[in-house]
Amino acid sequence: MPSFTSPMPRYSFLDDYSEGAHPALLKAIISGNTSQEAGYGGDAYCDLARQRIRQHLGREDVGIFFVPSGTSANAISIAACLRPHEAVIAASSGHIVTRETGAVEASGHKIINVVPIEGKLTPQTIQRAMDDNWHFPHMAKPRLVYISNATEIGTIYTRDELVAIKEVCRANQLILFLDGARIGTALASKANDMTLPDILELTDIFWIGGTKNGALLGEAVVVKDARLASEFEFYVKQHGSLLAKSRIMGAQFAELFKDDLYFDLARQANLCAETLSGGVAAAGFSVYAATETNQVFAVLPLGLIKILQEQFIFYVWEKRGDDEAVVRLLTTWATEVAEVEKFVKLVQSWSK
Amino acid sequence: MPSFTSPMPRYSFLDDYSEGAHPALLKAIISGNTSQEAGYGGDAYCDLARQRIRQHLGREDVGIFFVPSGTSANAISIAACLRPHEAVIAASSGHIVTRETGAVEASGHKIINVVPIEGKLTPQTIQRAMDDNWHFPHMAKPRLVYISNATEIGTIYTRDELVAIKEVCRANQLILFLDGARIGTALASKANDMTLPDILELTDIFWIGGTKNGALLGEAVVVKDARLASEFEFYVKQHGSLLAKSRIMGAQFAELFKDDLYFDLARQANLCAETLSGGVAAAGFSVYAATETNQVFAVLPLGLIKILQEQFIFYVWEKRGDDEAVVRLLTTWATEVAEVEKFVKLVQSWSK
Amino acid sequence: MPSFTSPMPRYSFLDDYSEGAHPALLKAIISGNTSQEAGYGGDAYCDLARQRIRQHLGREDVGIFFVPSGTSANAISIAACLRPHEAVIAASSGHIVTRETGAVEASGHKIINVVPIEGKLTPQTIQRAMDDNWHFPHMAKPRLVYISNATEIGTIYTRDELVAIKEVCRANQLILFLDGARIGTALASKANDMTLPDILELTDIFWIGGTKNGALLGEAVVVKDARLASEFEFYVKQHGSLLAKSRIMGAQFAELFKDDLYFDLARQANLCAETLSGGVAAAGFSVYAATETNQVFAVLPLGLIKILQEQFIFYVWEKRGDDEAVVRLLTTWATEVAEVEKFVKLVQSWSK
Amino acid sequence: MPSFTSPMPRYSFLDDYSEGAHPALLKAIISGNTSQEAGYGGDAYCDLARQRIRQHLGREDVGIFFVPSGTSANAISIAACLRPHEAVIAASSGHIVTRETGAVEASGHKIINVVPIEGKLTPQTIQRAMDDNWHFPHMAKPRLVYISNATEIGTIYTRDELVAIKEVCRANQLILFLDGARIGTALASKANDMTLPDILELTDIFWIGGTKNGALLGEAVVVKDARLASEFEFYVKQHGSLLAKSRIMGAQFAELFKDDLYFDLARQANLCAETLSGGVAAAGFSVYAATETNQVFAVLPLGLIKILQEQFIFYVWEKRGDDEAVVRLLTTWATEVAEVEKFVKLVQSWSK
Repeated sequence: MPSFTSPMPRYSFLDDYSEGAHPALLKAIISGNTSQEAGYGGDAYCDLARQRIRQHLGREDVGIFFVPSGTSANAISIAACLRPHEAVIAASSGHIVTRETGAVEASGHKIINVVPIEGKLTPQTIQRAMDDNWHFPHMAKPRLVYISNATEIGTIYTRDELVAIKEVCRANQLILFLDGARIGTALASKANDMTLPDILELTDIFWIGGTKNGALLGEAVVVKDARLASEFEFYVKQHGSLLAKSRIMGAQFAELFKDDLYFDLARQANLCAETLSGGVAAAGFSVYAATETNQVFAVLPLGLIKILQEQFIFYVWEKRGDDEAVVRLLTTWATEVAEVEKFVKLVQSWSK
Repeated sequence: MPSFTSPMPRYSFLDDYSEGAHPALLKAIISGNTSQEAGYGGDAYCDLARQRIRQHLGREDVGIFFVPSGTSANAISIAACLRPHEAVIAASSGHIVTRETGAVEASGHKIINVVPIEGKLTPQTIQRAMDDNWHFPHMAKPRLVYISNATEIGTIYTRDELVAIKEVCRANQLILFLDGARIGTALASKANDMTLPDILELTDIFWIGGTKNGALLGEAVVVKDARLASEFEFYVKQHGSLLAKSRIMGAQFAELFKDDLYFDLARQANLCAETLSGGVAAAGFSVYAATETNQVFAVLPLGLIKILQEQFIFYVWEKRGDDEAVVRLLTTWATEVAEVEKFVKLVQSWSK
Repeated sequence: MPSFTSPMPRYSFLDDYSEGAHPALLKAIISGNTSQEAGYGGDAYCDLARQRIRQHLGREDVGIFFVPSGTSANAISIAACLRPHEAVIAASSGHIVTRETGAVEASGHKIINVVPIEGKLTPQTIQRAMDDNWHFPHMAKPRLVYISNATEIGTIYTRDELVAIKEVCRANQLILFLDGARIGTALASKANDMTLPDILELTDIFWIGGTKNGALLGEAVVVKDARLASEFEFYVKQHGSLLAKSRIMGAQFAELFKDDLYFDLARQANLCAETLSGGVAAAGFSVYAATETNQVFAVLPLGLIKILQEQFIFYVWEKRGDDEAVVRLLTTWATEVAEVEKFVKLVQSWSK
Repeated sequence: MPSFTSPMPRYSFLDDYSEGAHPALLKAIISGNTSQEAGYGGDAYCDLARQRIRQHLGREDVGIFFVPSGTSANAISIAACLRPHEAVIAASSGHIVTRETGAVEASGHKIINVVPIEGKLTPQTIQRAMDDNWHFPHMAKPRLVYISNATEIGTIYTRDELVAIKEVCRANQLILFLDGARIGTALASKANDMTLPDILELTDIFWIGGTKNGALLGEAVVVKDARLASEFEFYVKQHGSLLAKSRIMGAQFAELFKDDLYFDLARQANLCAETLSGGVAAAGFSVYAATETNQVFAVLPLGLIKILQEQFIFYVWEKRGDDEAVVRLLTTWATEVAEVEKFVKLVQSWSK
């Protein structure tokens, strides 16, 4: 049942959700299928998953909630944290700004757009947003800072950067919320100097993405504030994200965090990206953003892109002048090394 | 990994989502796991599922959208159909009124409550709601009628009843929306005289529940209006319900509608309920609502309830005087006949 | 410039906002027109009005905010008090349920309907609503009780009744919000045993209606909670109710609360209603609800109603059998006594 | 009752709503106060105002609705035009972006920010916003373009500019909505080449500001689309903006549009601004944006600003280097020429 009907199926570097579940997770779903379980996240699998994630976090007293998608994780978290007159500060490249159909606004909140620097916010750009939004009550009150790690262009925050952001948030009474759709590849990056407990310490609320790192679906929202955690489930339910058979998410997350599988998978994805990126560079082409995680942004000639498209599917991100374009290549735990090598070879043969 | 830590695990008649997926669906998930697929419902499995559902509907030109939960199916459908000043007419026992944490109101819409008759709306009660809500623009404008089939107490609509409701909707320019969380058990009921094409003909928008009839998750929303269908996906996405790997829902629905599995499973659930209901009646106890589908509402003595609770889990719905209570028992395709028989035997031994 | 083009203009008992401003308030608007003032409620007139209302309340430390309409007062207050998953408990006859086009739902909140007793809530009916809405997180969390004084049918709460409601609210952590569109006629009622300081003490937030008691527009929301008060203006602004030239509301409220004008006007309205009600009773007709304030609900023969309609405008509230109907008559500070007497005479001439 | 307690009261150029109503409008309010009138805009004064505005528009078949504030005019119009997944394109300097506390987002809609050119949108910047927001259904669908005339920095659109914007809207199926808070000074500008009928022809919905041009409160929304107009009042009511005694807005607008008073007042405001702007330029200082209407943005030395602040109140808009700042000066129909001359004299004495 091929999804692409081209005579020869093309290999896809389009995104990090083209494959199904990692085999270990699929096995967990199967073995978790047979018993009768309590509904809506009260089952034994979700319990186990929460227990194992808490072990990785190094803290017992945090709320953990499973939701089916990244958009629901973001919209629910923000709706739960804010009062109606409060606004979000986010990079204009942020997923909530560009790829969630206005879900944050749909629950009533303004997003104050900040021009990103390498996909990231900085203490200065956050402070500038504060300085520009002071005319109360005529302006919505900035109250939450949204960041992604890894960012939407694959870059990551260092510990120092996050500490500095936390400090500007503290000084301005801003909640710090981290979108962790790709937190696996971020923390598994060679450029990374943080751990999961660091993320917990330095943010107020964040989530751990399953969909883009081995799971069929599911993201785990980690809620530190006790009062917020005690009522968080209302928001999950109101947004239609409280699955009756949450066991399917519990089983997968319990497996991902049994040992270090979650980060092993991410590391594998990063490795493939590194190979792609290195191959492109070796062939004399530049990359648009540093390849720190599983996203490669390569600047390639249009002629080469056309040849690559005969065998590969990927995103042509934006034109560069008349002859070049930036292409985006994504890798995952499931990416086939042979396909990566084939891609690099094609690039290098062009460069000759 | 037992979810209930009582010394002897008790069998649950608590709801119709305590079990995992039907084995055939689990197999479909597994076999649908390996290929690379387009994201967000553009995959081969969703395509196949849509094709097969359309065959069962007898019509090609309808939009079909997969969402993860019943609450999301309801909230999305209603949000997509209404303008901000428009209201919903629903039974006060309706799922959107009593079990969805105000999700409909959260997207801005008033629900006009109608006292149900056997869990159902009638042309008269709908017309009465119209007559009571005429003072425009001071009242929200009634624009959509929400019904469930089967209802929240397990009763079903006959074709004549639905035709009459459709007529009152047509006369009042009301959209008719049917919540089909349990449409399987409704159409598989011995009391039923409708088909899936009838439901399509007589409603404007409805959904087919997967979660409560064999699937791990997923509901299929059927959208007849071409203009609404063309933009429906925006709403799915905005509500956080557009799963990147929708293949997991596609694979299951493709299996459910390959032949007649969807209705076979529902029939099995109804059969178990019939056995329970018949056993209770034979023991001399009454039922609160007719057992037409997979829900049994039995009026039992408190003493008997206590004994039953030692071996079974079920919902004590409401007290009746000092000595009795209504209990709710739900059955599914997975309900074990031996447990049903054990339950009936306990009831009958008390009655002696 | 007559608004009704009937040959002979008819006198209206239709509502309590058919007339313009009381002459003293009009004079206040004129004299407050000339100076340059700070915008958005920071002007000298709003300051003075707040100061005088606080004197009547006997407390300095409360926030007071002027908004243009009753619907905005209700929607803003409720939006400011609640988090997204929280619901309102209200009588099904409440203004927010029946005459505000779903404004409360439009800001996302469910209203739990309670059957009123003489237009009022009681501790028992509130507790019953709590008992019916416990299934968290599947149900919205009841968090605010909305009452009107006077009610929508003109009845009023006694101090004992309000104390008891306050107690059930305290026990259930419910915010008590009082819609005071007609608080003037309530506190000026002969049946009343409360003062404005009592209302302040026994509620968490309430408002004092100007529109229905002498003003051209304007309601004063009184906010006791310091934290809520400090951010309340954001909500006023976000709902489009922060008037640039709020001086027009300030000037009127400063006049209404200079001495006792606010209650004098209300007393006058009540007196006219008493005369109407007494006249109807003396003629042998019954009233539908006790005439405690400025609303008279009289049960009259259809033939008499037809005759009355030749000279008067009023609301035919609902049919009673084949020969009678309930009519609603409203009075204000501006009601002409001669017209009241003419009305009563017509009623009594029929009764002969 | 002075609002500013400085020893010598200072004259204010802070905004265009520091004064009360124009005397002719005040007289209209007084004379419109006495009769009994139908509520909620059904009165004789609103009828007359609608009739006279329609004469100025040169068209009978348009809906006209009076609302109390600019924020309510914008929020209501946008809520009424859009479905939940649809977004607004606006300049990042637009009033809905910077001064309305997220009211548009509060009714669920995303605003796509566009960098303004002299406070304005252009066909190119609108088209660019369309080109950047194509990834459906992951992005909200752009559906309405919001412009202000005059803009927030006092510049105006020419007919050619508006025709070109209309054309790009037509080509992209975008609704064109014009915020006319200062449409008076725009159409009365010496640089203007449009009439009110032009505005009606070239937009889909727009409003005529009363508050900033002589009225105590009130804006008139003009709705061309018949279907939208027929239900528009629901939105006015739901947003708390349907005033019971709308006569106060009707009386003022009837007076403003009796002859040409509305534009006479605006012309007077512009004249004062021209004098201020000319005086500043003659003294050798530059202006930040062309003075086309009643807003002057002058770049002045900090020392001079300090001296001016002893006698005048105005907005210090933003710093310019270490020694200068942009100040904003607003004028109205009520601005005293003597104060303008005094201000100019102070500026010129510094420049010597």
